Amino acid sequence: MPANHFNLLKTSGSARAGELLTAHGTVPTPAFMPVGSQATVKTLTPDDIKGLGYNMILANTYHLYLRPGIDVIEKMGGLHRFMAWDGAILTDSGGYQVFSLAPLRKISDEGVTFRSHIDGSEHFITPELAVGYQEKLGSDVAMVLDECTAYGDSKEKVQQAMERTHCWAERCLKAHTRKDQALYAIVQGGMFPELRRKSAECLTQLDFPGYAIGGLSVGEPKEIMLAMLGETVVLLPKDKPRYLMGVGSPEDIIQGVARGIDIFDCALPTRVARNGALYTAQGRINIRNAVYKTMDAPLDPDCDCYTCRTFSAAYLSHLFRSGELLSLRLATVHNLRFLNNLMRKIRESILNDTFITFREDYLSGYETTDEETRVEQKRRWLSTRR
Amino acid sequence: MPANHFNLLKTSGSARAGELLTAHGTVPTPAFMPVGSQATVKTLTPDDIKGLGYNMILANTYHLYLRPGIDVIEKMGGLHRFMAWDGAILTDSGGYQVFSLAPLRKISDEGVTFRSHIDGSEHFITPELAVGYQEKLGSDVAMVLDECTAYGDSKEKVQQAMERTHCWAERCLKAHTRKDQALYAIVQGGMFPELRRKSAECLTQLDFPGYAIGGLSVGEPKEIMLAMLGETVVLLPKDKPRYLMGVGSPEDIIQGVARGIDIFDCALPTRVARNGALYTAQGRINIRNAVYKTMDAPLDPDCDCYTCRTFSAAYLSHLFRSGELLSLRLATVHNLRFLNNLMRKIRESILNDTFITFREDYLSGYETTDEETRVEQKRRWLSTRR
Repeated sequence: MPANHFNLLKTSGSARAGELLTAHGTVPTPAFMPVGSQATVKTLTPDDIKGLGYNMILANTYHLYLRPGIDVIEKMGGLHRFMAWDGAILTDSGGYQVFSLAPLRKISDEGVTFRSHIDGSEHFITPELAVGYQEKLGSDVAMVLDECTAYGDSKEKVQQAMERTHCWAERCLKAHTRKDQALYAIVQGGMFPELRRKSAECLTQLDFPGYAIGGLSVGEPKEIMLAMLGETVVLLPKDKPRYLMGVGSPEDIIQGVARGIDIFDCALPTRVARNGALYTAQGRINIRNAVYKTMDAPLDPDCDCYTCRTFSAAYLSHLFRSGELLSLRLATVHNLRFLNNLMRKIRESILNDTFITFREDYLSGYETTDEETRVEQKRRWLSTRR
Repeated sequence: MPANHFNLLKTSGSARAGELLTAHGTVPTPAFMPVGSQATVKTLTPDDIKGLGYNMILANTYHLYLRPGIDVIEKMGGLHRFMAWDGAILTDSGGYQVFSLAPLRKISDEGVTFRSHIDGSEHFITPELAVGYQEKLGSDVAMVLDECTAYGDSKEKVQQAMERTHCWAERCLKAHTRKDQALYAIVQGGMFPELRRKSAECLTQLDFPGYAIGGLSVGEPKEIMLAMLGETVVLLPKDKPRYLMGVGSPEDIIQGVARGIDIFDCALPTRVARNGALYTAQGRINIRNAVYKTMDAPLDPDCDCYTCRTFSAAYLSHLFRSGELLSLRLATVHNLRFLNNLMRKIRESILNDTFITFREDYLSGYETTDEETRVEQKRRWLSTRR
């Protein structure tokens, strides 16, 4: 059996329960990947991440190329050894980051010239280089280099970028040699159903071992996001894993699973945690609210994370109000554990064929405060427009 | 046997090995206490602190009085429960912090009026209040309220402050009622041997269960610090624990132990860690130096801490250069483990009566880079002068 084989175990409506076999262990799906762009999930050690129940994380080729450099990590025996993580790693190609973080990019069919957001130095990346970097990093799943567009871009512009993304996908596939690493394609097409369908059809002909959906959750209304997702997923092969990039609030994950997504990643759960926004089954709360200053109970009594098992909301409130570093870690632990528990419950409900009920119950009980999701989408959108 | 009994087990020259019995466990001495001013040792959970080998930490009444407030912590069942730490806690009275952190203080025989360094609000503290606050916090060791002076202050000024400190010590002792808490006196007297002796003589007549030495390591040359320490320690009762406040570099700890000190605390080891300055048996190194960018070995191959067991110096260098939060924690873990190992070795050498050799070997092998110790002393001194 090849590394990165995907087993589809059960469906419940369009929702799927499966497992992704990698050279660094089996990942039960649907799965959420914590984001460790710079070879670290912020505030957490590899032991912590394992303890929270995660088997797979995401790292970013763009960040690691700029710092410490791909060659440094290769010399250290690859990314797993460098960051002491023996679970699975998916690396993003750098496509999205070049378009959202790097100023002064020039794009041609050959590749992208961009400036480092760290020191302004100029760099050039091609599909072949993006694959080569990820092979040196030694991630379990690599992503093709794609050209990203923004919400609001014209159909012509989106179509051009999509077509270039298809050419690049083919070049990536040709350049890719590493047998213990899977290379996933990225479906683009912006907010145009016709282009989304075209992109899915075109890329599935290339027979990648997995398919990602890019360019969503970049500022568009949620209905549009879900509609585009629906258009795309139905055209993807059933026996391959499907990865919805950059999506990860509890409610979006549930909606994604309902449409047939297997893998998610998002910096939101860890970023909002560091702002004191914490997930509960009743919705997101902000630990900085005055009510928590004297609350002698865990912030989420239903939660089994270290933070909730050990500390009162009052203590967590104190740490946040005092600007204490431990607050960032305790909040990260909570949100990631909350999401891991959510993924486990989702998976169980699919295996029991009760996902539809689970989804209804969850979303009806979940009061979407959502102002920070919107802020985050706006942030992503603004950075894409730059 | 009363809580906070001290057993002197062995001496080796003037160095002492003992144990401090508290309501929250036994603390082998000589001991270093990590500083957790705001009810948290920065970046670490209580589990981490225990795992590093510590049985006792320091917290600050001044900080906790301002935020979250003594009453909040009392309502949460006291400081141990609030911060989920079941080891011993020593609370500083707030004396030093009022003089080093709070602007616009007015001092009278009755007490000190000061402004919060957080919001500028005005507060008044007396010896009786300082004891009452610490009784509410429920620390295992409380400290008397003292008046602090700065390096360079006139003998007259230092003498006046010392005499007020003595009056306040008596008032603290009278106000103190909690039987499971020990109240320690603080010897002052600045850089004047005669005053140091007078302070030690006066306070030992009051029969406190422990004696601290305050007002050192505030910017004076190291020789003067050690001379003042020597003058003071010999006059303290042999059967009581001796606590050198605010001192904690490896070499200063060894020099303190050599003169008969049992307990130390200092924010320096954790603060310099967060700047990338890490202890090794060969001296302090800075992980930001270029040499570590590609070093495929632990920063200290002799160290058994999680950081050194798990990561290369190159990875730690990457985290620091990338401004990653995990760097602060991994460095803190290393420095605190280094110091805990040092305390263990010191204690063993005293029990084996080989401390003099140990000290010589250690200090000869230890190249004191020391520029940051000096920076830290200057910082403390400057803040005291404000």
